[in-house]
Amino acid sequence: MPSAVLLLNAPDRAGIVAEVAAFVAAHGGNIIHADQHRDESAGRFRQRIEFDLEGFGLAREAIEPAFAPIAEKYAMHASVHFSDAVPRIAIMASREPHCLVDLLDRVAVGDLVADVRAVIANVPDHEAISGFHGVPYHYLPVTAETRDEQEAQVLEVLDREQVDLVVLARYMRILSEEFVERYRRRIINIHHSFLPAFPGARPYHRAYDRGVKLIGVTAHYVTADLDEGPIIEQDVARVSHRESVHDLVRKGRDLEKVVLARALRFHLEHRTIICGRKTVVFA
Amino acid sequence: MPSAVLLLNAPDRAGIVAEVAAFVAAHGGNIIHADQHRDESAGRFRQRIEFDLEGFGLAREAIEPAFAPIAEKYAMHASVHFSDAVPRIAIMASREPHCLVDLLDRVAVGDLVADVRAVIANVPDHEAISGFHGVPYHYLPVTAETRDEQEAQVLEVLDREQVDLVVLARYMRILSEEFVERYRRRIINIHHSFLPAFPGARPYHRAYDRGVKLIGVTAHYVTADLDEGPIIEQDVARVSHRESVHDLVRKGRDLEKVVLARALRFHLEHRTIICGRKTVVFA
Amino acid sequence: MPSAVLLLNAPDRAGIVAEVAAFVAAHGGNIIHADQHRDESAGRFRQRIEFDLEGFGLAREAIEPAFAPIAEKYAMHASVHFSDAVPRIAIMASREPHCLVDLLDRVAVGDLVADVRAVIANVPDHEAISGFHGVPYHYLPVTAETRDEQEAQVLEVLDREQVDLVVLARYMRILSEEFVERYRRRIINIHHSFLPAFPGARPYHRAYDRGVKLIGVTAHYVTADLDEGPIIEQDVARVSHRESVHDLVRKGRDLEKVVLARALRFHLEHRTIICGRKTVVFA
Amino acid sequence: MPSAVLLLNAPDRAGIVAEVAAFVAAHGGNIIHADQHRDESAGRFRQRIEFDLEGFGLAREAIEPAFAPIAEKYAMHASVHFSDAVPRIAIMASREPHCLVDLLDRVAVGDLVADVRAVIANVPDHEAISGFHGVPYHYLPVTAETRDEQEAQVLEVLDREQVDLVVLARYMRILSEEFVERYRRRIINIHHSFLPAFPGARPYHRAYDRGVKLIGVTAHYVTADLDEGPIIEQDVARVSHRESVHDLVRKGRDLEKVVLARALRFHLEHRTIICGRKTVVFA
Repeated sequence: MPSAVLLLNAPDRAGIVAEVAAFVAAHGGNIIHADQHRDESAGRFRQRIEFDLEGFGLAREAIEPAFAPIAEKYAMHASVHFSDAVPRIAIMASREPHCLVDLLDRVAVGDLVADVRAVIANVPDHEAISGFHGVPYHYLPVTAETRDEQEAQVLEVLDREQVDLVVLARYMRILSEEFVERYRRRIINIHHSFLPAFPGARPYHRAYDRGVKLIGVTAHYVTADLDEGPIIEQDVARVSHRESVHDLVRKGRDLEKVVLARALRFHLEHRTIICGRKTVVFA
Repeated sequence: MPSAVLLLNAPDRAGIVAEVAAFVAAHGGNIIHADQHRDESAGRFRQRIEFDLEGFGLAREAIEPAFAPIAEKYAMHASVHFSDAVPRIAIMASREPHCLVDLLDRVAVGDLVADVRAVIANVPDHEAISGFHGVPYHYLPVTAETRDEQEAQVLEVLDREQVDLVVLARYMRILSEEFVERYRRRIINIHHSFLPAFPGARPYHRAYDRGVKLIGVTAHYVTADLDEGPIIEQDVARVSHRESVHDLVRKGRDLEKVVLARALRFHLEHRTIICGRKTVVFA
Repeated sequence: MPSAVLLLNAPDRAGIVAEVAAFVAAHGGNIIHADQHRDESAGRFRQRIEFDLEGFGLAREAIEPAFAPIAEKYAMHASVHFSDAVPRIAIMASREPHCLVDLLDRVAVGDLVADVRAVIANVPDHEAISGFHGVPYHYLPVTAETRDEQEAQVLEVLDREQVDLVVLARYMRILSEEFVERYRRRIINIHHSFLPAFPGARPYHRAYDRGVKLIGVTAHYVTADLDEGPIIEQDVARVSHRESVHDLVRKGRDLEKVVLARALRFHLEHRTIICGRKTVVFA
Repeated sequence: MPSAVLLLNAPDRAGIVAEVAAFVAAHGGNIIHADQHRDESAGRFRQRIEFDLEGFGLAREAIEPAFAPIAEKYAMHASVHFSDAVPRIAIMASREPHCLVDLLDRVAVGDLVADVRAVIANVPDHEAISGFHGVPYHYLPVTAETRDEQEAQVLEVLDREQVDLVVLARYMRILSEEFVERYRRRIINIHHSFLPAFPGARPYHRAYDRGVKLIGVTAHYVTADLDEGPIIEQDVARVSHRESVHDLVRKGRDLEKVVLARALRFHLEHRTIICGRKTVVFA
């Protein structure tokens, strides 16, 4: 049963909730889920409303125009999404396959609903598994000198496939500011530390050296500031002195897979609103 | 800043959200928090709405009557609560003091907002700490033969103090059906297992014998069926073969304190709606 | 660097630790890991000792005979294992592929070290992914009437492939007592509940109906008593009233994959000793 | 039943385990617990051995001298402790009472075995609760200008009471390098962040501003480098955008209490060995 999702972000004012609910009700909409957040410190109001399209009195393309006066009145940023519009994504990977393979499996069994248009990697290793899942594989090697050309090739693939979202599944190269700007708010990365601890390179090694008792991972939107983007999801696992760096890396892989998948689901189901340095997640 | 909480439970119908929001808006209310749940399998709609009383156009005592027509129209069970009305509670304990002491501490530092009217115990041990916190202590011993008289004494204390909620803080006697019925939906217990595993007596011993890898605890509303009441909160802790029953008991104490306190907070802040065998918690 | 693992299980007596350590030292062994457990309630002593084979003064096949006098003196059950002897396993699955696919992926990336000799399923669905990983697929359908014949076919595969361990990766048929006895202590199952809560069928549905606040899964050795075998590993995830049975099933899949993989690793690395109804895990 | 604990820290060499076990066995000792760790990257071997004193052939004061030749042979740092020697501790606190009160409660119920010789605070607030538990209260106010004199007063209390360990239970003043050096490896602090994230002041505010999805706390030995000391224990709790800084502070209190108590137990039971920037915890 298809549904519509309304994502709203506005200055906080009394009456918004009532007016939005009245809009849905006036057109015969049945609200399935609604979640809202009044951010007192920022003076903002955010809301996610999901309602059945069956029996709704407006055609899909008429919803946004019909809602526009309310959005304008409250100076809202508003967007409308449909549950049966499958987002088009690209997955970028480097040598380590676990996150890539996990995402392909999840899409295959219907655990994540996405149309994987491309796998892009700077190594040739993952062509077979991508092929097994019927996803075109783009091996685009890169060095410090050739980054600009390689990014141009990547962008060509993304643009051609009209990709809605880029997932960095342990892609270990830093993207240029221009690239990030071009796919602003549409790139999700998994970083293998509990940010803001251990940003940058080799976080498991540094976690080992520091003697932390828990390791963590962080899924976040990518911004020009490395590892500073709005956090979508994090999780941790307990470690002890018995465990070597190698053990931390292995344990971390399970965290990375699960946390990236959770973050991706939140995005694909239109449950996230980026608010400055933070992400509101209507989980 | 005092606020009002509206707790609603109704058959699911389109338009409820809009009508409730319109009611609050019509009287100039500013919604601080709103959370709702549409239980498809039960066909029910539940909602918790909290709004500022400052600037609200109705006096406190006028809110419920003014809302009554909406409640009636939608066959709602509706209740109104005020954030500055401090609930009156009684804590019942047996030999083990940790939950009792923890609750008294939390109330003392303002972590939990409640008016502790009485500590009732079937042992004399906790009089000093109750006295330290200025709470009257009622030592009411009980045996299998004297339960009826003892419960009568307990009820006399509860009634006299006009207690809104009874907290069983590791009170180890089973209450009669009559007692439970008398304080229906107003008794919270902490059971020292992850229900429905290990109901009844000596759950840590049984967990040890079964070789589980996690122990748990459960806070629930008390019903006539022992350990079958609607669950409010649960949590677990990892254990290993290295740990004796004694270690499990010790570890469990930390879980019991925290989980009982969380459940109590949910109740005191009017975040719970009992729905048959379950509790909806608007956390 | 290959190493040897000594697993010991004996009546508790003073002096065992010294004598075992002296044995290793006498032959020039360097102990890499050692973990032990004195089970006071059972009066048993268990130990896992891992030592470098490099420089060890005994040939592999000579270790067990050389140790035999100590084992006899202390009435020990003792076994010797080598880190470079890759265990031969078979994976059994039914309709749901997630655990099977996860295990095949883990073996492929070296996360688990095992030689997967066969995938056996009562549905034809997983032939392609098994083939992708180069593992023979045995589609052996079964009904209540044909269980005996099907089990005979399964046993033929297991015996022919000289399988050391059978992994039930969400295999949804109950194995006969004879089958279980034949592969005694060599069958690991993942049950989709936090045992002993919700043994048997449809645990997520029952968890949903009971309104628990955490769901769990359990990996255990299979015994003739359904869901009563020694627990190897468990874990849980938080759920709320917002989540449908479908959501619980989906969340549970991540738990099932991770917990089964952890249990399997413990077994493959000779970290488990079954002790009556329990498993000691030297993690 | 009193027991002895041997804590060993030595360059890694084959044969240590055997020689130490032989020493215990030679004197008729029965090993209750033994845990060891070979730190390959540091080339060190550490061990904790606990054995019954009953029936042990050496008097308490004779154990260390008798063991000295082995310690010397292997260039070990070795220490002997007795389970019935109750450590003398002082608790230092500032305005927030929750950790202090929690520790006093735990000692009172026997959950932690320590002799609390003094509560020292830079506020007068906690005198009553300290008095309730029969512990002398030292109100020693301090400003930036008077730190040296105040620390002299604190040291006088610690020295007079022959304190083995100082617990900073949310004591919010930075101790001087001299003070820290004087009680080197004998000061435990609870920091209200998941270090190395958010060292220094106001970590919950910074966690809120950064939009992390988990908050954490860290118990560590205090060194001259603020919040850089060897970590003993950490834990985290999930938070969401719904929660204000105030909620984070409240949630954090439960973490602080539990993590500080766990770290303290590890220290009091001689389960910790400080190894450079890290703590090995034989939990």
